[in-house]
Formats: sequence, C-alpha cells, structure tokens
Amino acid sequence: MTEQIQLVPNNSLITATPEEGRQLAVKMARLIIKVTQPDAEMREKMRPLYAENAGLLIAIGQTVATEFATIAAANNYWK
Amino acid sequence: MTEQIQLVPNNSLITATPEEGRQLAVKMARLIIKVTQPDAEMREKMRPLYAENAGLLIAIGQTVATEFATIAAANNYWK
Amino acid sequence: MTEQIQLVPNNSLITATPEEGRQLAVKMARLIIKVTQPDAEMREKMRPLYAENAGLLIAIGQTVATEFATIAAANNYWK
Amino acid sequence: MTEQIQLVPNNSLITATPEEGRQLAVKMARLIIKVTQPDAEMREKMRPLYAENAGLLIAIGQTVATEFATIAAANNYWK
Amino acid sequence: MTEQIQLVPNNSLITATPEEGRQLAVKMARLIIKVTQPDAEMREKMRPLYAENAGLLIAIGQTVATEFATIAAANNYWK
Amino acid sequence: MTEQIQLVPNNSLITATPEEGRQLAVKMARLIIKVTQPDAEMREKMRPLYAENAGLLIAIGQTVATEFATIAAANNYWK
Repeated sequence: MTEQIQLVPNNSLITATPEEGRQLAVKMARLIIKVTQPDAEMREKMRPLYAENAGLLIAIGQTVATEFATIAAANNYWK
Repeated sequence: MTEQIQLVPNNSLITATPEEGRQLAVKMARLIIKVTQPDAEMREKMRPLYAENAGLLIAIGQTVATEFATIAAANNYWK
Repeated sequence: MTEQIQLVPNNSLITATPEEGRQLAVKMARLIIKVTQPDAEMREKMRPLYAENAGLLIAIGQTVATEFATIAAANNYWK
Repeated sequence: MTEQIQLVPNNSLITATPEEGRQLAVKMARLIIKVTQPDAEMREKMRPLYAENAGLLIAIGQTVATEFATIAAANNYWK
Repeated sequence: MTEQIQLVPNNSLITATPEEGRQLAVKMARLIIKVTQPDAEMREKMRPLYAENAGLLIAIGQTVATEFATIAAANNYWK
Repeated sequence: MTEQIQLVPNNSLITATPEEGRQLAVKMARLIIKVTQPDAEMREKMRPLYAENAGLLIAIGQTVATEFATIAAANNYWK
C-alpha cells in the first residue's frame, strides 16, 4: 500500500523558497497520515478532531516542524 | 487552503538577531495551527485552552524549540 | 529476538530517491513496533487502533519524520 | 504581545560556559510559556501543576533538552 | 546505581553495519528504562503494557528513532 | 533558584567515553527535574511514579536520548 501513495511530492526535497518548503513539510506530514489510514472517508471523519482539539493541533505543528527541519537543511536554508 | 495563508513571514528564515529569530519561530508555529484550523472564531475559542493548560503550554514550547533550531541553524547562530 | 527481525531493510540507509527514502522511513518505524510486539496476531488487532485514532496517527507521523531526517542526511538530501 | 516580552535574554545564544548555556535553555523555555500565557497570576497558579506532576516535569525536561541542543551548537559545544 | 548498569554496550557508538546500529539503538533505549527501573520483576510486569498499548509502542519507536539518529551520525551513515 | 543547582556537572560536555557521556545525559535530564521541583521530599514521593509508569519511563528515555545527541556531537562521537 505504501507503493500506491506518493509520499514525497515531485520526489524531491528541493524547493524554490522557504514558503514552498514549508508547504512541502505540511504535505509530507499529511501523506504519512494518508498512508497509515488510506480510507478517505475515515480521514474525512477525523478531520474535525484535528481541527478542534488543541492538543492535536499542537502535535501536528510539532510534526511539521520536524519535517521542515529536514527540508530546510536539504535546501541549505535557501541562503 | 495552504496556498492562501503565508506560512513563512517574508518568505525567509534569515533574521537580524536571535530575538527576531525567536519571534519568527513563535509565528511559524502559530501559522501551522492557523492552516490546520483556518476558522478564526474557532481558534479564538481554543486560545484559553492553550493558555490555561500546563501540558499544552509545554507542548507549544517544544514546537517553538524545534522551529527555532532550524531558524538558528539557517542564521549560523547569528555568530 | 532483536536478532531475528531485520530492522534495516537491505541493511542500508542509502536509497535512489527521496520517495524511496520516505518508504524506508515508514518501514523502519514499523519494524521497531514489530520487534517490540513480535506477535503478528496482536499487531493485527492493534492496527485499527492506529488508523482510527487521530492522536496515534499524528504520533506515527512524528516518528516517521524523525527516521526520515536520518535517512535524508545519510543520502545528502539526494542533491 | 510577542514584542513586549524579550524571548532571548541578552539577544544572544553565546555563553561563556556550558552551565550558563544550560541556564539560558531553561530561561528560553520559560519565556515561551510566558509569551503564550502573559498573565503572571495565572502562571503562578499553574506552577505547582508543573512541579507536582511527573509527566509535566519530564515534558519540561524534553523542551529544555531541545533548546540546549541549539545553544550548544551555537557555542560549538564550548570546545 | 547508574554506575552498575552499562548504558552503552561495548562503550562505543561505532558499529559495522546499519542493522547493528539499529540494534544498538534499541538496546540503548531499553537500558535507560533499566536504569530508571532497576527492579527486574517490575520491568517484567510492565512488558505486556508496552507490547499491548499502541501509544506506548509508538512512543518507543520515537525514542529508538532519536537514539538511531545519533548512532547513524557517529558512523557517518555507514557510507 | 536556577543559580543554586549546578545544571551541568563539571561544567563540561566533554567525557572520556560514550558510557560516561550517557551517564552525563542521565544526570543532566535529572537536574532539570530538580531545578523545576527543588523540594527533595516531593521528588522522592514522585520517584515511584516514574519507575512504575510505562509511559513516563519511555518519556524519560526520550529526554535522555535528546540530551545524549548533544553530548555525543560535543565529543565528536568519541571517534
């Protein structure tokens, strides 16, 4: 099942700008949720849980921060 | 929806000072919460939850610490 | 028991592409669960717990992000 | 509100010794709590919660460890 | 008590292969549990808790991922 | 109060061996708990909580892993 969902959009960590790198971090974090719960209807049902639970919102932020650290290093911090 | 909210203010990780880098870390952490819960009213309702729950306060601190690590490296620690 | 389950597929962190690196991160995260809970039937019973619990889904994402950071560095970010 | 609280004491990550670096990590972690909950009375009320809850104590330790990693790197580990 | 339990097997982070590095990460994570709870009987009683609780399984995975990051860097990713 | 407890034993991250580095990581993690809860009697009362709660044991392991990453880097992985 891992094979059917693309986990890294464009198969690259390189982006033109920090903003695009951040968007990639958000997408990569979401794609792991997708690969673990491939049922779209189920994910749709869970969406309000994320959005309305303060602890889950922060946990998502932590994951995005970790993904972004890798992407930023890959892009040499867009310097 | 990710496209409509700017996730990296000024589209840059470079700041003049550690203080500004820290403020950027706080903002970037908050912007991920905003992109996951775009409803401003909903976020406003959750604000006291963060501020009055010791565990959530610490979790926010952990996320900011992770964002700051990336920003500090991007700025070569302002050395 | 650690000796019987291969923890690093192909015994290498090097992959051809970011996509394959991401798949390796997912596999390595799952193999740690396997080595801690070697009973296949038990793991099967727990699978819906992961997939239907928003907090656990995010926690898996955090672990994959951490594994991926190491794999990405090992591959010099596929640059 | 972020503008009113100084988030990085002395606006620098550089310290003379590891001990001072560690103290800076503790202070920076606390200042994020302060900026998220600016009401001093409220923070005072939460203090025993941190100090008497084993899970929160460990979570604070995790945050300090993350802040310290950045500060230690900034100081080239005081070598 | 820390003195009586060896925390780093062979007192070295260097391993011949990624697989052995991963096994070292698992062992080092377990040894911290051992040093915090030195009573073998107590640890034995807790073992099913880890193995049958999805959240704890993932948390162990997170810890192993963090230990492995250090070991992989120490071995220059076995390149 | 931060001033009264030494947070980094010997005021140095440099150790002779990985084993000593790991012991330093354990000590530094414990000293943050001490500085947040300076009352020795209170800490003594909490000790069994750590040692008998599987989730807390793992959380301590995560913190030690993070501290050790910094110490290992400081020592260039004792290579």
